[in-house]
Formats: sequence, structure tokens, C-alpha cells
Amino acid sequence: MYKALVNVTLRKSILDPKGKAAREALHNLGYSTIEDVRIGKFIEINIKADSEKEAEAIARDACSKLLANQVMEDFTIQITKV
Amino acid sequence: MYKALVNVTLRKSILDPKGKAAREALHNLGYSTIEDVRIGKFIEINIKADSEKEAEAIARDACSKLLANQVMEDFTIQITKV
Repeated sequence: MYKALVNVTLRKSILDPKGKAAREALHNLGYSTIEDVRIGKFIEINIKADSEKEAEAIARDACSKLLANQVMEDFTIQITKV
Repeated sequence: MYKALVNVTLRKSILDPKGKAAREALHNLGYSTIEDVRIGKFIEINIKADSEKEAEAIARDACSKLLANQVMEDFTIQITKV
């Protein structure tokens, strides 16, 4: 069994209203040294596979097809054995 | 300038309807080897600080006060210099 840890982030050129709202709220709380906040998704996927390579291929495929919107988002995958 | 990379995850005992929906959708697409999906948040915070320690303290504080709901969520922070 493998666990894929996936970070999905909005592309740099895409506006991030959630992150902007969080930054404004933090400024209002007094955190003036926080310059920018961007909010993406963190996805943990448990995969039954024979090898790390196979697990990564499945995770990459699942992200491309469903979990990330590649027009607006990038993703990185890290595989660990569990 | 430092960048804090924060992973916010739902606690193990908390149901994750978004993750469950993603798992069902992946099963319907034929990914039967995917056993479990949990979806959390990935937050990037740019912080002006004099040291890594100070940046981490600010990030931890911001997460505790605003970005994570500690009743239901856990978070991990990783600091990098940018």
C-alpha cells in the first residue's frame, strides 16, 4: 500500500480570492508581515499498488482526470510506502 | 522573506465528505485500487521576518487563529527561505 501526498496549487497567473480574503483577515488581526497567502488543496490518496512507480502513475492519472483542473491548477505528487 | 508551506488535514475521526465523493468518482472512472481519499488544504504564506524561527512562529499563530480549525483539523508547517 502506498500513500500519495498531492499538493494542488492555483497557477501564478490565476487570481486567488480565498487567499486574498485570508490575507486581509490576517492583516486585520495585526499580522502585517504576512505579504501573501495562496490557498490550494492537499490530497492524501491511499493506493494499492505493486511498486512506487505504479502508485505514482495511478495518482498522476487520477489528478489529471479528476482531482486537479489543469487549466488553472498545478500539482505535485509525493509517494510514501505505508 | 520566508515562505511557509502549510498542510491542513481533517483529523482522522472526522468524516470527509469531499474525500468520499472523490473516491466514489474515481471508482466510477475505474480506479479500483484507490482505497481512500482525504482532502485538506495547502496554504502558501509569504512572510517578512528576520529569521526562520520568527517566520515559523508567525505562521503557526496565523494557522491557530484563522487558517485552521483546531477542533477538527491538524496542520503541519514547513518553512523555506525565498
